[in-house]
Amino acid sequence: VARQKVAVLAGGVGAARLVRGLVPEVRAEDVTVIVNTADDETFYGLEISPDLDTIVYTLGGVAPPRRGWGLAGDTTHALEAARRFWPDSWFRLGDGDLATHLYRTARRRDGTPLSTVTAEIARAFGVRSRVLPMTDAPVRTRITTRRGRDLAFQEWFVRRRARDAVARIRYRGLVRARPAPGVVEALRAADIVVLPPSNPFTSLLPILGVRGVRSALAGARARRVAVSPVAGGQAIRGPLGRMLAAKGLPVSPLSLARLYRGLVDGWVVDESDRAEIPALERLGIAVVAADVSMPTIARSRAVARLTLRFARSIGCQRGPRT
Amino acid sequence: VARQKVAVLAGGVGAARLVRGLVPEVRAEDVTVIVNTADDETFYGLEISPDLDTIVYTLGGVAPPRRGWGLAGDTTHALEAARRFWPDSWFRLGDGDLATHLYRTARRRDGTPLSTVTAEIARAFGVRSRVLPMTDAPVRTRITTRRGRDLAFQEWFVRRRARDAVARIRYRGLVRARPAPGVVEALRAADIVVLPPSNPFTSLLPILGVRGVRSALAGARARRVAVSPVAGGQAIRGPLGRMLAAKGLPVSPLSLARLYRGLVDGWVVDESDRAEIPALERLGIAVVAADVSMPTIARSRAVARLTLRFARSIGCQRGPRT
Repeated sequence: VARQKVAVLAGGVGAARLVRGLVPEVRAEDVTVIVNTADDETFYGLEISPDLDTIVYTLGGVAPPRRGWGLAGDTTHALEAARRFWPDSWFRLGDGDLATHLYRTARRRDGTPLSTVTAEIARAFGVRSRVLPMTDAPVRTRITTRRGRDLAFQEWFVRRRARDAVARIRYRGLVRARPAPGVVEALRAADIVVLPPSNPFTSLLPILGVRGVRSALAGARARRVAVSPVAGGQAIRGPLGRMLAAKGLPVSPLSLARLYRGLVDGWVVDESDRAEIPALERLGIAVVAADVSMPTIARSRAVARLTLRFARSIGCQRGPRT
Repeated sequence: VARQKVAVLAGGVGAARLVRGLVPEVRAEDVTVIVNTADDETFYGLEISPDLDTIVYTLGGVAPPRRGWGLAGDTTHALEAARRFWPDSWFRLGDGDLATHLYRTARRRDGTPLSTVTAEIARAFGVRSRVLPMTDAPVRTRITTRRGRDLAFQEWFVRRRARDAVARIRYRGLVRARPAPGVVEALRAADIVVLPPSNPFTSLLPILGVRGVRSALAGARARRVAVSPVAGGQAIRGPLGRMLAAKGLPVSPLSLARLYRGLVDGWVVDESDRAEIPALERLGIAVVAADVSMPTIARSRAVARLTLRFARSIGCQRGPRT
C-alpha cells in the first residue's frame, strides 16, 4: 500500500467500527483521528471523554468487540462500591477504565491540556496513530427535549437512552473553542479524509463547528469520503433516525450529504440505498454502494478497504490533486 | 453497661484494633473517634485519608481482619490498570476502597470540609459512632531522615517501609490548624478518653498538636487511659521502637507516659512490663498490667473491656469526677 496520510473525524462507536478496519489497511502512523469531545462529562469527580477513550481503546486493541465503551473483560467493583455514595448513579465505569479517567483527571488538574493528556493515554495503550481531541476547550452538547427539558448529552443519551424527542441541540462553549494543536494541520496534510458513520448531530457537527475546522476541510487537498450511517431508511445504530425524522428529513444518505455539502467528495452508501445514487450524483458527489454494516472486524476491514480504494479512485470536484 | 461517653484519639491500625473491641462494649453512639489526618496524601489524583478510612472500615465491619488498610476481600484491578500511567506507583488501593477516595475527592473539590465528608462516608458504611478528623485543615507529616532526605510520611512509611532512621519529624500546617467541629466538644463531654496503642510520633502527637486539643484533654473531666504500644522492650508493631531508640529513649511504657504527661490518668501496660509499674506510679499514674496484644477480635474486646473497667476504677488525680 502506498503511504497516504489519512485523517478521520470521529464520534464514538460508529467511528471506532471503521477505524478498527482502517488501521490494518494503512500504516497506523499515517492516521490522525480527530475526535468529538462535546459528549465529555464529569462523573464521580472524574473527567470522562467517552469518544476519545473509545477510539484509543479501539486502536490499542483493548476495546470489547461488541460493546461500544470501556475495556474488554473489565470488572466493575469500584462502581459497585460507589453506589454507597452515589445511589442514583447511572453512568457505568469499569475498574481498568477508571484508571484512564483517574490519569486524565489528575493531569488536567495540573493544568495539562486535554490534547497532551490524550497523547499520553494513547501512548500508554501502544497506539501508533495520532488521536486528537477536536479542541482543548470545554464544549458540552445540551439537548432540549420536545417537552422543554434541558439535558446534558450523557443524561439524554445514556441515562434516558435517547428516548426523549429532541427539539434543539446546542454545543455549549463551541463558539469560543479553538482546534487542538494538530487538528487543522492534519486536515491540510491529509491525502484522504474519512467521515465515518457517526451521528452528525451528536458527533461530527460539533467537530466541524470548531473554528477553522470546517474551512480547513472545505479547502483540503484531500479526497474526502463519508461512510453512510443510515441504510434502507433506518439509522444503523442509535437515535439518528429519530433525530432526522424530527427535523422533517428523510432517513437517507441524501439528507446526510446535504448536511456535509461542500465537505465530502464521495459517499459510500449501503446497497439498500442504491436508488439514491442519481440524486447524490446530481449534487456532484461520487457514490459507491456496498454493505456498510461492520458488526465484525472482518466487515470493518472490508468497508475500510473499499472506502480507501474509492477515495483513491474519485476525481476531485475542485481541480486536480497533487 | 451504664451509658458513658467515650472519646478515642486514633491513628491507624493500633487504634483500629482497640476500637473494634471497644464498640461492642459500649453503645456505638456514645463513642467519638478523633482521627489523625497528618498522614493524608494525594495519590492518583485522589485525596486519601488512611487513618480515617481504617477507623471507618473497622467500625463499619468491612476492614480485613489482619491487614491494616482497605476493605476485606477487595480486588485491585484499577490499580493494575493504573500502572500503565504511573509505572512507579507504590501506594496500593483496592477497587472498592477507590470509591471512597473518589467520593472524598469529589466532595472536597466542591469545597465540602473533610469533617462533613467523613461523616457522610461513615454513614454510608453504617457507622453509628462519630468519626472526626482532628482538623479540616491540611496537615502533613514530613520525615527528615538521618541522611538528610525530606520525605512525605507515606513515602517514608509505605514506600520505604519506615527503614530510614528518622532525624526529625515535622507536621506541616499544624500550627495553623484548628480542631474540626466537635473535637474539643467531644473531649469536654467525654466520661472516658482512650489513647489507644498508636504511634505517638506519627499519630497521636499531631492530634495533640492541633490548637486547643492538648488543653481540652488536660482539662477534661474524663478519666483518661492509655493502652501501651510497647511490650517487653519492643513496639507491638511498626517503627515506634526504632523511633524511641533514635531519641535515646528506652522502648518502655515509661517513655510513653512521659510523652503524654499531664494528659493520662492511667496506663494499661503489657504483663511483660510489670517491672515498670513502680516508676509509672511515681509519676502519679494508675497502672494495670495485662496482655495488650490484639491479633483477634476476641483479644480486642478483652483489652477494651479491661481498659474501660480500669478507667472507671481509677480515681481522678485532679479532684472528684461528676
